[in-house]
Parts: sequence; C-alpha cells; structure tokens
Amino acid sequence: MEKVSSNRSFKGVHEVWAHDSNATSCKMTFSIYLPDNPQGDKQKTLIWLSGLTCTEENFRVKSGVQRFASDHNMIIVSPDTSPRGENVPDDPNYDFAQGAGFYLNATEEPWAENFNMYKYVVEELVELIQDHFPVDENRIGLSGHSMGGHGALTIAIKNPDIFKSVSAFSPICNPVKIPWGQKAFTRYLGKEESSWDDYDSCSLIRKQGWQKDILIDQGEEDEFLADQLKPESFAKACDEKNVSLTLRMQPGFDHSYFFIATFIQDHIDWHSQRL
Amino acid sequence: MEKVSSNRSFKGVHEVWAHDSNATSCKMTFSIYLPDNPQGDKQKTLIWLSGLTCTEENFRVKSGVQRFASDHNMIIVSPDTSPRGENVPDDPNYDFAQGAGFYLNATEEPWAENFNMYKYVVEELVELIQDHFPVDENRIGLSGHSMGGHGALTIAIKNPDIFKSVSAFSPICNPVKIPWGQKAFTRYLGKEESSWDDYDSCSLIRKQGWQKDILIDQGEEDEFLADQLKPESFAKACDEKNVSLTLRMQPGFDHSYFFIATFIQDHIDWHSQRL
Repeated sequence: MEKVSSNRSFKGVHEVWAHDSNATSCKMTFSIYLPDNPQGDKQKTLIWLSGLTCTEENFRVKSGVQRFASDHNMIIVSPDTSPRGENVPDDPNYDFAQGAGFYLNATEEPWAENFNMYKYVVEELVELIQDHFPVDENRIGLSGHSMGGHGALTIAIKNPDIFKSVSAFSPICNPVKIPWGQKAFTRYLGKEESSWDDYDSCSLIRKQGWQKDILIDQGEEDEFLADQLKPESFAKACDEKNVSLTLRMQPGFDHSYFFIATFIQDHIDWHSQRL
Repeated sequence: MEKVSSNRSFKGVHEVWAHDSNATSCKMTFSIYLPDNPQGDKQKTLIWLSGLTCTEENFRVKSGVQRFASDHNMIIVSPDTSPRGENVPDDPNYDFAQGAGFYLNATEEPWAENFNMYKYVVEELVELIQDHFPVDENRIGLSGHSMGGHGALTIAIKNPDIFKSVSAFSPICNPVKIPWGQKAFTRYLGKEESSWDDYDSCSLIRKQGWQKDILIDQGEEDEFLADQLKPESFAKACDEKNVSLTLRMQPGFDHSYFFIATFIQDHIDWHSQRL
C-alpha cells in the first residue's frame, strides 16, 4: 500500500492509495475520504463505483461528497473502474476494456486475467479497507453512477451480508438488453447469454430479492436514459418481488456530475440513516 | 455569443459560452451559473478569477459553488485565465502565457495584442454579462484563487465603482516580490519595475485604499505560501491604511480545490451579505 496523495477537505482528508492487486493482476488505485477520527472509532463506510471512462478521481474531485461525509463521519471509498496499465489488454472504444470493467469477472481471453472487478471490489477492496482504515465491517454501503450504478446494484444484491445499504445514480439497470452491456458482456463473458444474467440487476432482483429499500435518482434529460439505462425495467422487477424502490425522476438533469453533485447529499443522508 | 454547453445543477443551469473578444483578439470562453429566475429579476453576481493553468472549467467542476449560488440566487461567472489558441503566442512554462494571463494588460511584444486580461474582465466581460444575462450592475462582486486572487484584489481595488465586494483564496498578494510575478511582469510589462506596481495589490491598497472589508482564506499547508503568496505583506499594507481585512489561516489545508470547496460557502455568504 502506497499513499499517492492526501488533501485536507472539510473535517477530514481525502487520500489516494495504490496497491498490487491479486484480483486484477496489476497495480490498482483507490481514493478514500477519512473524516477526522482522533479516537479511531469504527466508522460507517460507503463504497462508490464510478461510470465509464472514470478513474478514482472523478467522484473525489467533482461530487462534493466530502461536505456530507464529514458531517456524518462516514468514510468514502472510490476505486478505479477497471484494471489499467501497459500490461493490461485494452480497446480503442471508450465503453470497453480499460475504464470500463463493468464490475464482473471476465471469463473470455484476453480479459480473464485482469478484468475481475467484481472479485476486486467484493473480496479484495473490502478486506483492504478493513485492514488499513477504521471501517466498520457491519456498516458498509454501496452506491455508484451509470456503469457504477449497475455495479452497486448487482454487487449489493448478491452480497447482502457485506453491503447493508444500496443506492444509485442513473444506473445501467438492465445491461443484457442494451448496447453498452451486450457489447461488454459478449467480449468479457462470451456469447452464451445465460451467463450474463448473473450481472444483470433485473435478473438478480427477481432471483434473489433485496430485504431492504433502494434509492435511485435518474435525470429526465439524461442523454442515455432511453437507450442504455432502463430504470423502468428495474422498477418492474422490484415491483414483482415487493422490493421497496424509490425511483426519483429528476426533471432537467442530465448524466453528468452536476446531477450527482446536486443530489449526493440525499444519498449520503440516506445511507447514513441505514448504516 | 455561442452557447457551448448547459448542465442543470441545483436550482439553476451552468452554461459555457464562447465569443470573439476585442480585448484579447481571440475567441474567449467563460462559464456562467444562472439560478432559476422565471421573473427575469436582476441578480447579484460574483465573478470568479481562476489560477495558473486553469480554464473556465475548474471552478465550475470542482468548487461546488452551485449549491450556494442557487441558495442565494447569485449568478456566478468564471472566465478563462488567458487568451488561447493557435494564433496566440505561448510559452512552454506552466506559469507564463496561455493559462497564465495574470489579469494585466501586456505592453511588451509579442504579448501586447492578446494578453489583456485586465481589459477583458473590467470592460468586456462585465459589459457582456450585463447585456446578455440578468446581472445587476450595482451588485457585482469579485473573487478568485491564487493568480486569480491577485486578479480579484487588484481589479477590485482599482474599480470600486464596478466591484462592490472582494474576497480571495490563497492570493498572490505581492507579485512584484515573488518568482511567479517577477517572471510574468518582466515579460508582459518590461523590465521597468515601476510599471509593475499598478498590478500589485500591496502597492494598490497603499495608494488607493478600499472603503469596505476584504475576506481572504489561506491554507497553512499551502506549498506556495512562503515563496509565492505573501498574505502577511497584504495584511501589513491593509493595516497601514486602516482597511478591514479578515485573513483566515486555515490549518492543514493546501493550495488545491479541496480547500476552495471547503470554504466556498463562507465566501458566497459573505458576498451575498454585501451585494
């Protein structure tokens, strides 16, 4: 574990750390906001998963989350969105390979060695932050944006023992039915579509349910809403399984971090109440 | 005037506009946050001047100002920090030429045609925003960071009829005495140091005073504090002239936007009370 940077922000510090990852066979970077904690108390923790093209930096720099994490004494962790580096295979498209890990474990070559972001988040990152920071293992929540909203929903639904609360901004709710997901899943997981359902939040909620409630914010002017996000499909699946979903359609808002910054306070409040 | 982008943010929109500038003889870009204003009321306006290497984007994306501008119905304008483009002379150093206009009117070649950011802000931008947006000409304030803090202080002190309030983060307070300023002023203004005083806030406050109060926030862990910023020199000059300066030294904070985001609420409140 190597500390890359540290900046004081509100009543805490935002740090960036790098480490060698077993899950992704490369060096990974994540950022962590640590509220002042002179007693070293175990703290509520929210892991944030970012969207296509993002690194650990976007949420740290653009969301304004520190103001509310500081108020609630909540640790915030944001990993990178994929393995990276010269030794990691890549693709010229913005929506596949580096910057687009889709929070799954790839089975197809040449991706299978590195593109295991599911394993990275669920096993490696959760353990790492518990070992090195005052993360309360019983109070970890999950949220994210777009591809990271897909990651938050699918990972939480499959791991309710680890993640006690989940929310999302503009999530890719039904990746098996939309172009981003079909493209990525074909290349990461192969052409056998039955293997895709394990990373589709609509399929997962139908199969496994979710015992608590879920908050989703979605901009009505989001340029990807109609073709890529499909919140109505997730709402239908939740309805079928009697899962309590609050889906807020926000007039005028698009897919950008300006949307996230506007409503991040609500999500931090929401997780804080549940953790 | 060409609208480049628009994003909804809190209760308003953040827009980016481009236009041909007479002052800088090139296309200039600025961003403007417009709180919802269905009646078209004239609104308080804060112009924000950014620091070295910045464009109009940094403050828009990283400061979190929209939350408070929205609360106070305050328009926020942030121009670029210099003329730009293939036809504008440049320099490989980060602290000179494009991205480093220092809010002065250059007199030396090859800079004099384009590097007139003082004229751009005071004459062109102020007129432009009054013509196109509901800016209240009697309620315009000025703030900025680092090189932009220098810009805010010097421009306000020289133009108290236009700018009714002024604050700064980590301003370059005494550019004639420090490396960034000496390098820039020598090349923009020539070796005759007497011409430099017209862009030095310590000299200007001694010469012209300031009838109102001034707020400055400065991080104690700022990596440029000792060599480049000199807030103590400005405090001394204010003291000599009985100018009311609130200089807040903030423990643990550095020169970054994490510092600005932490205290921007205080500055927006402060300007709102005075405008």
